[in-house]
Amino acid sequence: MPVIGAPLPEPDRQTSPTTTDDRSSSVGSRIARPDGLAKAAGTARYVDDLVFPRMLHGRTVRSTIAKGTVRAVRPRVGAAEGFVVVDHRDIPGVNVVTLIEDDQPCLVETEVRHIAEPILLLAHEDREALNAAIVDIEYDEQAPLLDPAHSDVVQKRLVVARGDLDAGFADADVIIEGDYTTGHQEQLYIETNGVIAVPEPGGGISLYGSIQCPFYVRRALAVLLDLPPERVRVVQTETGGGFGGKEEYPSMLAGHAALLALEAGRPVKMIYDRTEDMLATTKRHPFRVRHRTGVKRDGTLTAVDIDILCDGGAYVTLTPVVLSRGVLHSVGPYRCDNVRVVGRAVMTNTPPNGAFRGFGAPQTQFAAEVHMERIAEELGVDPVELRERNALRPGDVTITGGRIGADGSALEVLREAVRRSDYHAKRAAYRGTGRGIGLSLFFHGSGFTGDGEKKLASEAALEVTAEGVRVLAGTCDIGQGTRTIHAQIVADVLGIPFEQVTVVDPDTSRVPDSGPTVASRTCMVVGGILQRCAHELRERLDGLSPREYHERHGSLVVSKHYEAPPGLSFDEVNYVGDAYGTYAWACDVAEVELDPDTYQVRPLRITAVQEIGKAIHPVLAGGQIEGGTAQGVGYGLIEEVVMRGGAMANASLTNYLIPTTLDTPRIDVTILEHAYEHGPFGAKGVGELPIDGPAPALLNALRHLGVDLRALPATPERVMEAMCD
Amino acid sequence: MPVIGAPLPEPDRQTSPTTTDDRSSSVGSRIARPDGLAKAAGTARYVDDLVFPRMLHGRTVRSTIAKGTVRAVRPRVGAAEGFVVVDHRDIPGVNVVTLIEDDQPCLVETEVRHIAEPILLLAHEDREALNAAIVDIEYDEQAPLLDPAHSDVVQKRLVVARGDLDAGFADADVIIEGDYTTGHQEQLYIETNGVIAVPEPGGGISLYGSIQCPFYVRRALAVLLDLPPERVRVVQTETGGGFGGKEEYPSMLAGHAALLALEAGRPVKMIYDRTEDMLATTKRHPFRVRHRTGVKRDGTLTAVDIDILCDGGAYVTLTPVVLSRGVLHSVGPYRCDNVRVVGRAVMTNTPPNGAFRGFGAPQTQFAAEVHMERIAEELGVDPVELRERNALRPGDVTITGGRIGADGSALEVLREAVRRSDYHAKRAAYRGTGRGIGLSLFFHGSGFTGDGEKKLASEAALEVTAEGVRVLAGTCDIGQGTRTIHAQIVADVLGIPFEQVTVVDPDTSRVPDSGPTVASRTCMVVGGILQRCAHELRERLDGLSPREYHERHGSLVVSKHYEAPPGLSFDEVNYVGDAYGTYAWACDVAEVELDPDTYQVRPLRITAVQEIGKAIHPVLAGGQIEGGTAQGVGYGLIEEVVMRGGAMANASLTNYLIPTTLDTPRIDVTILEHAYEHGPFGAKGVGELPIDGPAPALLNALRHLGVDLRALPATPERVMEAMCD
Repeated sequence: MPVIGAPLPEPDRQTSPTTTDDRSSSVGSRIARPDGLAKAAGTARYVDDLVFPRMLHGRTVRSTIAKGTVRAVRPRVGAAEGFVVVDHRDIPGVNVVTLIEDDQPCLVETEVRHIAEPILLLAHEDREALNAAIVDIEYDEQAPLLDPAHSDVVQKRLVVARGDLDAGFADADVIIEGDYTTGHQEQLYIETNGVIAVPEPGGGISLYGSIQCPFYVRRALAVLLDLPPERVRVVQTETGGGFGGKEEYPSMLAGHAALLALEAGRPVKMIYDRTEDMLATTKRHPFRVRHRTGVKRDGTLTAVDIDILCDGGAYVTLTPVVLSRGVLHSVGPYRCDNVRVVGRAVMTNTPPNGAFRGFGAPQTQFAAEVHMERIAEELGVDPVELRERNALRPGDVTITGGRIGADGSALEVLREAVRRSDYHAKRAAYRGTGRGIGLSLFFHGSGFTGDGEKKLASEAALEVTAEGVRVLAGTCDIGQGTRTIHAQIVADVLGIPFEQVTVVDPDTSRVPDSGPTVASRTCMVVGGILQRCAHELRERLDGLSPREYHERHGSLVVSKHYEAPPGLSFDEVNYVGDAYGTYAWACDVAEVELDPDTYQVRPLRITAVQEIGKAIHPVLAGGQIEGGTAQGVGYGLIEEVVMRGGAMANASLTNYLIPTTLDTPRIDVTILEHAYEHGPFGAKGVGELPIDGPAPALLNALRHLGVDLRALPATPERVMEAMCD
Repeated sequence: MPVIGAPLPEPDRQTSPTTTDDRSSSVGSRIARPDGLAKAAGTARYVDDLVFPRMLHGRTVRSTIAKGTVRAVRPRVGAAEGFVVVDHRDIPGVNVVTLIEDDQPCLVETEVRHIAEPILLLAHEDREALNAAIVDIEYDEQAPLLDPAHSDVVQKRLVVARGDLDAGFADADVIIEGDYTTGHQEQLYIETNGVIAVPEPGGGISLYGSIQCPFYVRRALAVLLDLPPERVRVVQTETGGGFGGKEEYPSMLAGHAALLALEAGRPVKMIYDRTEDMLATTKRHPFRVRHRTGVKRDGTLTAVDIDILCDGGAYVTLTPVVLSRGVLHSVGPYRCDNVRVVGRAVMTNTPPNGAFRGFGAPQTQFAAEVHMERIAEELGVDPVELRERNALRPGDVTITGGRIGADGSALEVLREAVRRSDYHAKRAAYRGTGRGIGLSLFFHGSGFTGDGEKKLASEAALEVTAEGVRVLAGTCDIGQGTRTIHAQIVADVLGIPFEQVTVVDPDTSRVPDSGPTVASRTCMVVGGILQRCAHELRERLDGLSPREYHERHGSLVVSKHYEAPPGLSFDEVNYVGDAYGTYAWACDVAEVELDPDTYQVRPLRITAVQEIGKAIHPVLAGGQIEGGTAQGVGYGLIEEVVMRGGAMANASLTNYLIPTTLDTPRIDVTILEHAYEHGPFGAKGVGELPIDGPAPALLNALRHLGVDLRALPATPERVMEAMCD
């Protein structure tokens, strides 16, 4: 029994020599997170806890059809009853949620492309009156396009080609094919999407919200409202989880609240309830992945041909980038000289799919790892041996020709996971018991893809104050511990106590643009810029502590932009080169029990061995791995978005299920640390890696029980169908 | 029994022809106040309902001695535990709460002048931790000066002299003397003092608060923080009463919150609890007033000699102005050719006394009216006859030589109150029943004293919008109905429906400085400026409605400053001339019952006949009269601030009593309307007048029962003492 109040267990760690700064004392220690107490005590204030003077509540009136045109909109309320009403004609700037393609309107003008698309905005002082207001909308309805396989509206097409595919297949002893499908997944942050827009004197706007990317929101508002960016202030409030779900969608919501606020001349709060959040906001993209693989009898891969179809939903949003990461991870952490991957994302009349932890990689690595298990079965080769034979080693090249660095750890994580889980013994022992064991080997590129970081040119800064040093960065703590790890890095480089480093919370008027809080980049990339700031600051302090310096000379600010590690290059057109600066590596071993009567799969234990360069804060890093693994268990076994007519039919917590504590197996986390030479203290990304592995490991454990399932999630219905085929 | 939910009764009104604008339909009607529903439904947001991102709570550490010096201040908490600590050394500008004399520091440096003086400020996220924090303060204590009679530190001296006093006394048949004293009174607004300070990018500050005078606060913060006024934004939040208690004190509190907020870089909320509010903030000034009066046998006043001593408390604050209004009203609404009034305000080591509804006039008119009753007794003249003989009539001159206009209504209110109350019949009938009846005749100057309005040069404006017209004024609705009456005035001048006029809530970045919300000036003075704006706007609209104008030509703003009525002049040095543009007039008749065992005085009925020029909104005006009368009943009978060692000893609602519904007598309100030619629709001030009369009327009713009481309040102890002498 866990003892309430007992310290959290620290995950096992195996550390190799790292490129640490000399005076490391805070990094690697389980220092208390400075925001922990307020969160535990309930005094931390989230956006819905904020109340501004004379604030109104806002509401979005949404389309009830998936495709068609709006003929008439007739609100049955008006200014006389205290209502503020806004439609697309009230937009001062461009009617767009600006991002990659600028195809998505902030408010429907005529064309409706999905259910729950925003058409009209209302605000009122009284939330009940607001929700009771009736708006009549007349449509000319058309038949929606719901099956991506039938869509020929291509949002993005990507091809990776390497070697000679025909020669590879000719060289193979066996060719194995397979089709794998994954469904939507809801991010299900504890705190739903919410913002407050406050009109400022002179026509500017301030936006407070539960968001991951304040500078995305600022840009979107500037375009929508036709304001210079400096008149738009975006402040991230304490955020109860994001998982990507607060990357692009808040720009839409912020636009709505800002339009209402400017119209009303009063602050407007908009907080989605759970159903609206599920119906209207983004989800993980469903993928269909086809593998055709040539292998030698000994398991060596000779040819890999992959075809990916990604359902982008009604607008482009981030789909091209999700597809890109999916393509780049689609072979898994394996070497093969002859590869072709064709990725296609298409439009359907469903709410746009968007950013979600893993960002395409969980979908394609699920396919890759279940396919790998099927290859082992076909060849009669031990699954571990098959993976060992093909795993990427330092010096090997990826499918784009990028070279794996000295920190490449595929073999280590595989071997350690097999050892710790007692995989082989259990694989034998479970036979006939209703239990199964399976594994997945996977990797995750840290930071933005290709030249993304170079183009972004993120900035971060340090400021010397009377109390010590202040971190100025635009990346958000959304629960993952950014504040803590950034302060740790800075404290150790400067050789000052952790308590002397404070972190300024993101506010676009106070911090530089450090890029979005996404892509496992916050520690490695932004932490790296801060580390370089701290190095320069240490020199400029010239032996003084920050406090001493401040007393003698006053304030001092050191600011730096991202600099790419030397030699890194990527051809974005032909997809050749270093897709990522480095990768984190992991192996999950899942053990399950199958109920023969109900077909319910009970996960018993997951052994997660993950190599992340350096755990700046081992408890927080362990928490990322545990949380991501649990979310992966949900993705693998439970979480099913039921779509009907283009809308989520189970948009509530009573029928969209995620793992509770009782549904979550014991997760045995081991962190390996092979320092990445260009990461701060050796750190690589850790946020997304853990979600890539559990689903295929769980399905491979089911496969060990004889269930040939190639679609997610493994609900009792799907398991039954697979077993009765 | 009153029926809950039944419409409020409208007070009786007797209207004489007024100088109304031609299209009056909203003025004079009982239109629903636009803020009423939100207040009744509990959705109106007061400052303590507001919560800003990352907000801290602030606390003031106060002196526990009344006089001395601070030797050392040692907080037992620091930044490490999340505390923000601020003392006088952290003030960027001048350490002063700027007002008249600039003698009051925002935070004690060394010298302490009263108990509860602010010394140190703390802020913390957690209110409980904040309140538990211990601060050790060492003092060198000195003996405080507590009795104003022994103080020779004069804050202000004023003399009014008219005619030949010696000749007047020589001409008298009788000379009557008397000493009258009044105590402190607590404003006891429902909502205690509270503000939130929010640091703005670039070093500015926004201040949200429960305040009467946003531009006072802005000026005080600019001086304290060394900021240009445009970097200080002050927003009045919905305010639960002021009564003067939120005129000058919020500048102190705002300074504290702003200092903490700038130090913390985070919003800081400071809300006083009831005890702190009572201990630390201002109260009504205690007065001692000595009368020496020469009269003829027929009651004609021949000489009036008055000496006033006012307890200003430890700092000057508004005391000179309170003394001035007290002096100017000290004779009451009577004519006398030979007058001398000497007023003196002195310093004591008690918290500064300050603005409170009536502003000196309740104290001196209490003395004048009890003295008048004693004169009637001495002469054996009917109290009504005595007052009729001396009452100011149109064309008469006041003690400063100002001429009473055609709207002078002393005789009318007196006669109507006597008639309605059946005064003479009851005065005879009550003999021997334990009941008594008494009256008071009183007046109140509308607006600022002397050249105050000219110097202030208030501004207000109207803006044409798509919906109609928007009122831009810096005066605050603190419950009295400013929003409603300003909109009524504007609607009627423009001939548009009331619903088409909205009122912008005070925010120094959005509205012009219309002067403070004090001195019964909001309707007459600011409403008058708005009326002139509306007249000009009507011309410029050239026959179009505001909506039509906006559709064709867009926005239009008309702005005007105060202009003094022609011929008005006042010599501020010699106190000669028109002290006020006009006066409102009233007569209260009080009926009481005395419990012979407990000496408790039970008020039975007050007949309040008040002439206010024009009731823009009869129900709101009637509410002002009822509320002011009830507050006057508290002042007369119940409300006693017990001072011990320089501090209020009964600073809680369990022992500082105010009238509950059951303690409040039936109040029979009659509004008379004699239009003031320079008031909007004839309106004069109504906010303060009602508080001036109840206390003397009640004590005169007691006097009718044979109780010679000359001090307030008439508690059982004081009544017993007076009866047993």
